[in-house]
Amino acid sequence: MDDAGKVKTVEELAALIGGRVSGDAQIGIECVASIGSASVGAVAFVEDRKALESAQDCAASALIVPDGAGEHARGIAHKVPAIIEASKPRLAFVLIGRILHPQKRREPLIHPTAFIAPGANIALTAYLGPHVSIGEHSTIGTGTRIEAGVVVGDDVTIGIDCVLHPNVTLYDGVTLGDNVVLHAGVCIGADGFGYVRDDVGYHKFPQIGTVVIEDGVELGAYSCVDRAALGQTRIGRGTKIDNLVHVGHNCDIGERVVIAAQTGISGSVTIEDDAVIGGQVGFGDHVRVQSGAVIGSKAGVLPGKVVRPGVWWGIPIQPLDEYKRLNAHMGRLPQMREEIKELRRKVQELEEKVHDQG
Amino acid sequence: MDDAGKVKTVEELAALIGGRVSGDAQIGIECVASIGSASVGAVAFVEDRKALESAQDCAASALIVPDGAGEHARGIAHKVPAIIEASKPRLAFVLIGRILHPQKRREPLIHPTAFIAPGANIALTAYLGPHVSIGEHSTIGTGTRIEAGVVVGDDVTIGIDCVLHPNVTLYDGVTLGDNVVLHAGVCIGADGFGYVRDDVGYHKFPQIGTVVIEDGVELGAYSCVDRAALGQTRIGRGTKIDNLVHVGHNCDIGERVVIAAQTGISGSVTIEDDAVIGGQVGFGDHVRVQSGAVIGSKAGVLPGKVVRPGVWWGIPIQPLDEYKRLNAHMGRLPQMREEIKELRRKVQELEEKVHDQG
Amino acid sequence: MDDAGKVKTVEELAALIGGRVSGDAQIGIECVASIGSASVGAVAFVEDRKALESAQDCAASALIVPDGAGEHARGIAHKVPAIIEASKPRLAFVLIGRILHPQKRREPLIHPTAFIAPGANIALTAYLGPHVSIGEHSTIGTGTRIEAGVVVGDDVTIGIDCVLHPNVTLYDGVTLGDNVVLHAGVCIGADGFGYVRDDVGYHKFPQIGTVVIEDGVELGAYSCVDRAALGQTRIGRGTKIDNLVHVGHNCDIGERVVIAAQTGISGSVTIEDDAVIGGQVGFGDHVRVQSGAVIGSKAGVLPGKVVRPGVWWGIPIQPLDEYKRLNAHMGRLPQMREEIKELRRKVQELEEKVHDQG
Repeated sequence: MDDAGKVKTVEELAALIGGRVSGDAQIGIECVASIGSASVGAVAFVEDRKALESAQDCAASALIVPDGAGEHARGIAHKVPAIIEASKPRLAFVLIGRILHPQKRREPLIHPTAFIAPGANIALTAYLGPHVSIGEHSTIGTGTRIEAGVVVGDDVTIGIDCVLHPNVTLYDGVTLGDNVVLHAGVCIGADGFGYVRDDVGYHKFPQIGTVVIEDGVELGAYSCVDRAALGQTRIGRGTKIDNLVHVGHNCDIGERVVIAAQTGISGSVTIEDDAVIGGQVGFGDHVRVQSGAVIGSKAGVLPGKVVRPGVWWGIPIQPLDEYKRLNAHMGRLPQMREEIKELRRKVQELEEKVHDQG
Repeated sequence: MDDAGKVKTVEELAALIGGRVSGDAQIGIECVASIGSASVGAVAFVEDRKALESAQDCAASALIVPDGAGEHARGIAHKVPAIIEASKPRLAFVLIGRILHPQKRREPLIHPTAFIAPGANIALTAYLGPHVSIGEHSTIGTGTRIEAGVVVGDDVTIGIDCVLHPNVTLYDGVTLGDNVVLHAGVCIGADGFGYVRDDVGYHKFPQIGTVVIEDGVELGAYSCVDRAALGQTRIGRGTKIDNLVHVGHNCDIGERVVIAAQTGISGSVTIEDDAVIGGQVGFGDHVRVQSGAVIGSKAGVLPGKVVRPGVWWGIPIQPLDEYKRLNAHMGRLPQMREEIKELRRKVQELEEKVHDQG
Repeated sequence: MDDAGKVKTVEELAALIGGRVSGDAQIGIECVASIGSASVGAVAFVEDRKALESAQDCAASALIVPDGAGEHARGIAHKVPAIIEASKPRLAFVLIGRILHPQKRREPLIHPTAFIAPGANIALTAYLGPHVSIGEHSTIGTGTRIEAGVVVGDDVTIGIDCVLHPNVTLYDGVTLGDNVVLHAGVCIGADGFGYVRDDVGYHKFPQIGTVVIEDGVELGAYSCVDRAALGQTRIGRGTKIDNLVHVGHNCDIGERVVIAAQTGISGSVTIEDDAVIGGQVGFGDHVRVQSGAVIGSKAGVLPGKVVRPGVWWGIPIQPLDEYKRLNAHMGRLPQMREEIKELRRKVQELEEKVHDQG
């Protein structure tokens, strides 16, 4: 990953993120790094004043710190020649990282080993790598990069500036917006899991809907989004999904949703904008997660449940506070049993005494 | 997905499923659709009389309803020109869907970019897509469709009318029956996870068995079925498995079993015919699930357990009724603690009184 | 999988593992098999004296038994002409299996459909199968076998005698040691899942680190190891990982660690040497698992937790003993409720009596 961009001065970088420099503003920066590993030419960051303590031996050429912490930082990180104050140091670090380490670019190319079916429409500035296969009447937008071994079905639409990493599979008829990133092996549009049983066995319910992935979505390696039975499965704009996640048929995932690795979402689940879902969560079908809900890792959500805003936890899910309270109660079970035993002893004593006195 | 079949009349469709038509039997139908999205030319269905209420504004050209509900349906779904009564409306919808939306067909082809090793035996009517690779002495049956990027090892046998979606991997020596559907990236025959440890580290136990996938099995995207250490791993006829499922070495999965997404099955597990397994379930090794058992999502089954017919839930699994009862008890823990506190107060009072009276 | 090696005599095999033969030492052995399925020409094993009972009808040509159990074995397994005593029968079986069933070998080859970018450095004895793609400046070591459809990015280093099964993806810049085995579809080096949110949405944290997979590691089908944000993600020497496992960015997995299928490991988790992790376990970020810890399947480990040596279980994890004790307590909840009810009745009686006596 050494596609590093060109060297920038601290001054240039600070200007780009609206930061204030103290120290040597003309020093050259060529990469981002962590506090612990940074050396000459690198910029690092500390999130808050407390974290500044860890920067004592920092060997970076520049350090991004919170607004107002510049002087304090110069005192602690005395080896660092330039300090940049920023209102949101982590975000500033991200933006500077994007400049110093620009995304890999490929020159426009249709690799000679790629196969393009009749009627496909490939933008002149697209990149199709080795052994890529594009189906009939599919469209690839400008600047889109399709890496080796990707298989695109028929009648697929892919927007501009997308990146499809190796061995992705897009089934027939699915649609990707712009700036979509699909990591290795993502699978969009496989049949939903729906069958009707009769005496002989299972018959597949029609799986003739489609999938729409909106602008700016990123999906992790081997995550799967099934096509709708009828209608469409949707992943909303700006949503980020980790590796090995399963999204069932007819799900409607909103915008800016975050879903961590290995979570599984049954059919017809709705997740509204800005929800945050942990890893290895399981959703029964027809769940609705409302905007503002946060669901902890490994939670289980029963079919049909409406998950309101707030933090949820456990199997089945409950508000985090209740979950904690119940867990605390459970931890006291041995003590409760002791107390009951003690009470029984005392009550028996009392009964005997009262009987004697009676 | 617009490989729609030819238009059929309501009369033709009703005849195929043994249904009874009222209204305009000659109207043309070209697709299936849901109640809510159906428009002219579509057939929809309602499962039961209660669901008929949702058909008030249905704009379909035909509606499948339960036997005997025809007249009632004509009253409610007054915009729908044809009603088909069927004994099992959902099944009728599935069968009609299969006729109106036939599975994608490919003309027989060996794509020029496909690689076929010496001694492989490819049926004349098979389809091998771009960048497919077939190993030595492997056999591909008539009508089988192998999509782009699939890798078939040596000595593999694939039956007739199978569909292997893109990027599937079959290791050496595995066997698929007829009408098997493998979604993108399914992996059959990787080594089982078995090692023997000595002072130096782990040595792989021999993984020299094989895998047999019987007729009519369907496996979801990226599901994995490991080869047996010795002997064979089997998936029985008509079994349906969802995405990202792991089936370990030497498992024996029966016929018409259903397994939802992300379930993991350790080595040497037996699941008998007609069992139903939810998503994200985990099985320890040497479990036996008996025919008639239903295991809820996210359940955990301890090694060696025999799971009898009935509905099971939880970690570790217990009968659903017991699970619910225990959950109810747990919900009353705070109240129990209060009651114990109250009892202790009362007992102390009593002790004091009895002492005073003594 | 019939790449069987050459036939060996019992005497030769026993010599290789330091075993002692009784019976016909010249009999020929060509394969390993289980007790139940072994026939002429096969060697089977029993782990301990108790298991010998299962060998009564064993039809193998040779049987490996524990040291000192030879005579006893000849009495029970009377059909088996040769008995080999070994101090560790299972390990002896593994070592003999490796000789009789050697790993598949490929003649050195660069398949004509493989694509090799400029500046890549492929050892003369390497095998590159059909439709393989190797990026710029990548290095493939001697004897390494890369099966069909594998995609290797730019600046990747692969050591000697590795096996990459079909459709593996290695992103740019990752490093594999020697004797690494990656099963179908393993993905090394995809971006870690880290974002910073502002008013507009999520911005990706720089994912510019790398991944190092050390010697002798084996990863199961579709397991994913993400690249570090900054720095490196490491899988230590001799570690074995099952199918569909997720290893997040910046994890440091030690040597000889075992991780079963579908486990998910968040970012910046450290797992020390020789730990054993079950299937479907979930780790929050910044967990440290100490050497000697064993974590049961389906367990959940909260972020930042230090897991000490011992056996752990449950969500969140607790020592197995405590987990069992708590489970036993929970099972007694109905009885506890009954006891509380009974106590309340008795206390009320007492109160009445004491009141009457007062």
